[in-house]
Amino acid sequence: MTFSTESKGVYAIATTPFFEDGSIDFNSIDRQTDFYEESGCTGVTILGIMGEAPKMEPEESRAIVKRVVARARIPVIVGVSAPGFAGMRSLARDSMDMGAAGVMIAPPPALRTDDQIVNYFAGAVEAVGEDVPWVLQDYPLTLTVVMAPGVIAKIMTNHKSCLMLKHEDWPGLEKISTLRAMQKAGTLRDFSILCGNGGLFLDFEPERGADGAMTGYGFPDMLTELMALSAAGKRDEAHDLFDAHLPLIRYEQQLGIGLAVRKHVLKRRGVIATDAQRKPAQMLTPAARAEVDYLLARVGRRDERAAL
Amino acid sequence: MTFSTESKGVYAIATTPFFEDGSIDFNSIDRQTDFYEESGCTGVTILGIMGEAPKMEPEESRAIVKRVVARARIPVIVGVSAPGFAGMRSLARDSMDMGAAGVMIAPPPALRTDDQIVNYFAGAVEAVGEDVPWVLQDYPLTLTVVMAPGVIAKIMTNHKSCLMLKHEDWPGLEKISTLRAMQKAGTLRDFSILCGNGGLFLDFEPERGADGAMTGYGFPDMLTELMALSAAGKRDEAHDLFDAHLPLIRYEQQLGIGLAVRKHVLKRRGVIATDAQRKPAQMLTPAARAEVDYLLARVGRRDERAAL
Amino acid sequence: MTFSTESKGVYAIATTPFFEDGSIDFNSIDRQTDFYEESGCTGVTILGIMGEAPKMEPEESRAIVKRVVARARIPVIVGVSAPGFAGMRSLARDSMDMGAAGVMIAPPPALRTDDQIVNYFAGAVEAVGEDVPWVLQDYPLTLTVVMAPGVIAKIMTNHKSCLMLKHEDWPGLEKISTLRAMQKAGTLRDFSILCGNGGLFLDFEPERGADGAMTGYGFPDMLTELMALSAAGKRDEAHDLFDAHLPLIRYEQQLGIGLAVRKHVLKRRGVIATDAQRKPAQMLTPAARAEVDYLLARVGRRDERAAL
Amino acid sequence: MTFSTESKGVYAIATTPFFEDGSIDFNSIDRQTDFYEESGCTGVTILGIMGEAPKMEPEESRAIVKRVVARARIPVIVGVSAPGFAGMRSLARDSMDMGAAGVMIAPPPALRTDDQIVNYFAGAVEAVGEDVPWVLQDYPLTLTVVMAPGVIAKIMTNHKSCLMLKHEDWPGLEKISTLRAMQKAGTLRDFSILCGNGGLFLDFEPERGADGAMTGYGFPDMLTELMALSAAGKRDEAHDLFDAHLPLIRYEQQLGIGLAVRKHVLKRRGVIATDAQRKPAQMLTPAARAEVDYLLARVGRRDERAAL
Repeated sequence: MTFSTESKGVYAIATTPFFEDGSIDFNSIDRQTDFYEESGCTGVTILGIMGEAPKMEPEESRAIVKRVVARARIPVIVGVSAPGFAGMRSLARDSMDMGAAGVMIAPPPALRTDDQIVNYFAGAVEAVGEDVPWVLQDYPLTLTVVMAPGVIAKIMTNHKSCLMLKHEDWPGLEKISTLRAMQKAGTLRDFSILCGNGGLFLDFEPERGADGAMTGYGFPDMLTELMALSAAGKRDEAHDLFDAHLPLIRYEQQLGIGLAVRKHVLKRRGVIATDAQRKPAQMLTPAARAEVDYLLARVGRRDERAAL
Repeated sequence: MTFSTESKGVYAIATTPFFEDGSIDFNSIDRQTDFYEESGCTGVTILGIMGEAPKMEPEESRAIVKRVVARARIPVIVGVSAPGFAGMRSLARDSMDMGAAGVMIAPPPALRTDDQIVNYFAGAVEAVGEDVPWVLQDYPLTLTVVMAPGVIAKIMTNHKSCLMLKHEDWPGLEKISTLRAMQKAGTLRDFSILCGNGGLFLDFEPERGADGAMTGYGFPDMLTELMALSAAGKRDEAHDLFDAHLPLIRYEQQLGIGLAVRKHVLKRRGVIATDAQRKPAQMLTPAARAEVDYLLARVGRRDERAAL
Repeated sequence: MTFSTESKGVYAIATTPFFEDGSIDFNSIDRQTDFYEESGCTGVTILGIMGEAPKMEPEESRAIVKRVVARARIPVIVGVSAPGFAGMRSLARDSMDMGAAGVMIAPPPALRTDDQIVNYFAGAVEAVGEDVPWVLQDYPLTLTVVMAPGVIAKIMTNHKSCLMLKHEDWPGLEKISTLRAMQKAGTLRDFSILCGNGGLFLDFEPERGADGAMTGYGFPDMLTELMALSAAGKRDEAHDLFDAHLPLIRYEQQLGIGLAVRKHVLKRRGVIATDAQRKPAQMLTPAARAEVDYLLARVGRRDERAAL
Repeated sequence: MTFSTESKGVYAIATTPFFEDGSIDFNSIDRQTDFYEESGCTGVTILGIMGEAPKMEPEESRAIVKRVVARARIPVIVGVSAPGFAGMRSLARDSMDMGAAGVMIAPPPALRTDDQIVNYFAGAVEAVGEDVPWVLQDYPLTLTVVMAPGVIAKIMTNHKSCLMLKHEDWPGLEKISTLRAMQKAGTLRDFSILCGNGGLFLDFEPERGADGAMTGYGFPDMLTELMALSAAGKRDEAHDLFDAHLPLIRYEQQLGIGLAVRKHVLKRRGVIATDAQRKPAQMLTPAARAEVDYLLARVGRRDERAAL
């Protein structure tokens, strides 16, 4: 249950719970941390995009890292993406000092060419230090940076400290197959691949070679069950479970309001106290909230976890 | 069954069938036109983005319009989006002369401000002529042009000849609600709203006020049944039918390979002879094809139309 | 010489001087602050894009504000653009407490529609407080957010605390004319317009109605002289002076390496000790440095300030 | 004076002259073709972005190619960039049949990774035929596709039929140096490099290794003189000439209205009959026209060609 190139299962993308006034709700953080562990997650990632990281003050980021690391008995990954390497370095070093298992780094939106991307990560690794284990985040939909398999291979070859790919290209199934084929052919070293995109293709991603998921869908307990079914070769059962949740997974996969859906579900499940977000934020309208509740009720007919 | 501000139901986004050598397969066009009608579609839209319109020579576009219009007994809408107004005008006029019911116009990707968008459509309407009925396409995901409800309202107010909105913003449910609320309040005239995005939110869109769908999902017969259930107020049955197809709808909603999935399904259903695309094209790998077939088999357990 | 809707002249965009190891060079900050004042600048803007603001730690930002405010006898504007309103608020409040004259806010790149832009600034003003005077930065080339004149007008109407527009649209001359015409017609309240874009159109911008420049070109003393000539109605002399510097102004207007050119010039003028930048940075190659020096020598034939 | 990997000098980017009603003015086309030749141009490129190519009907494109090829005694390059390979192929084959020297191909805006770019040009060359000589257009500012030197090298290595790079990256001086260094080191074959961007860096580009210019600035006779001075090693004279025109070159380098400036200048020089553009178009306001005329008068004090 360490963070390594062999990591499997589900790394939960943690929300950052707030009170209605925007201050951090540390008790909800604790409950959420426990909830991820009890759901069978093999790791937790904090301060990512869905963790509202850019809205946090530096001292707040440290307080959150400290709190989660103190509580969790599973590896904690800390998102350290930042516009400058100075801020990235200090958060990474502080997080490792506090006991984080590693950090996650996403490319800044301005990068275009393969060389620019490769060079950026060389700079990032130099900044955080070659001793810090990290996750490479590949998320073109939001970041607009497209990494070809060859670029990912080059970064992995250049930096032994990169242990995992957070894969959320869309479409992305072929990318997983291509990377795994390169590894099978011996031209690329091993690393873990966990998939994001809210889990929208998680029925097929393990079949293509992914090791699991790194996403924050409000039912991590379903995700871990799904990974277990898939690992046991129970294909149809895995798809049945996935399909039962797909209407809600799909609804959550809306840029902007996805986080509002996620926090609403976690609140209804009793994990966090409020669905408050820091500004600027997009909240659910009454109509949208009713739709999510309707979907929960429908999922609940097949999965009692959703019968709230 | 005319094209009007009252249009409802399903307008099929037609593929353009090719032979393996890239030449147009007119017999498949006929079969496809018949198929859409037999599926209960209330209209058909040709030469859209998914119709590979930009890959067509002008005389080919005319030949396709002529063929479909001659065959169809439902309204035919022709995509006429073009980089310059000269080309837009000539295809629009030629299409109307051949018997098309109207045209569809999308904004070019460079537009940014509300004024730029409004002015663009003023120029487009001047070009095609104020007597040509048209559909406004709102598709930010691919076109990168974001139209606020107020912009759509302004365009609708300026141009009586615009009868329909093809709505495919994502997230977009609130936009439908906002536009319908403006109409209810009497500050905006009536127009039809049909939804795209491959149908990915078609379980909720009619509940928000949409009149139906304009999309090319390979089961238009399911879409028309869905619209009928929704219109009859059978909410749960509508969602049941939708959810049965959602895994495949979701799989088709992948930029780039979506068209390949669609053509593969239409070919397997015997509608078109090949799944060939004109270059540049993204085709399905064997793995992806097997995944689509697996999904078809799974959908087929609940909807015999998919049991091929 | 206060920061107001009547502000005129040149607000220097300050660089942030570093030592070669990336630490902040406060003595160079002092020298640079003095230099801007001695050059006749009527204000100074710190921690903007060209001040490498996103690469700074929060406590460093505060230290820089404190240092400059303590030294300067002209108004100091602090760039407070941030991904979240929490960080924006705290830097703005701290800066005002330390004696800054106001803050500058740029829109985040994701904004598209007029409404999104207007709403963003409503949130920003709510965050920093309605009592904090601020500058609206309009910089589509880098930020990809395009603000129509009507949007700027709406923001100015909504927020009395916005005293100035930093105008750096490109092309942008018509935008200045349009805004000034709205003010003349009485449909828009007064505010100051200072122009950026490295001064590339500063020969015509005052003729269109701009009040001056807010830019960091390495010869602020030339910019203030240019504004004086323009204000005195000496059109040809103003253009003569501008044209003498244009080859260098143009060379500096290269995205990415522009800051390197600027720091090189300031270093050669003895203002700052090194041309070091924090990473990630683009530095001048020897060929580029030789080109800048050649341009300096050529400018020096007509303006002795450049004869270094 | 053929189109080859040794091509030097100035290839004029031709405007497409229209009458006020938008129809093509073939007499002005003839005059413009003659004008480019008399100005010392070594080639002419038609139907590029500034030639309003996307606004042309296919038969109109052919008529323009025919007219220019029949008139010109210098090589004629035809822009054939198109959304689909079918249209690209037919225009390329038709143009070569009519006597064009080659074609120019730009990448479509959607391309992101190095592989995508390389593959696109493989498809394009397959489409137009390996026997058709062509120019690779590298224009990130407008096309948003960034090609690293390594990508250009790969395309050049893959396709012997590519004889020339139209270089208009910005900043781009280092790219020229890098490519020339690769050639000097023997790792890259020879090809011609002509520079665009309206000539804004044409004082330094030949010094970096460029063979000349491919741009449409209204004074091609100045450009050819500039190239001659540069080739003769008269560095200061070259810069003097360039600097005299820079205020106007800079003014023309405004996205959107640049073409309006260019046509206005060509009209004032008696080359084309009107400055009409096909819609959608951005025209000069009276204020802008007066500014261009003022700049012409100022340039005219040092270069009598501009004293109109």
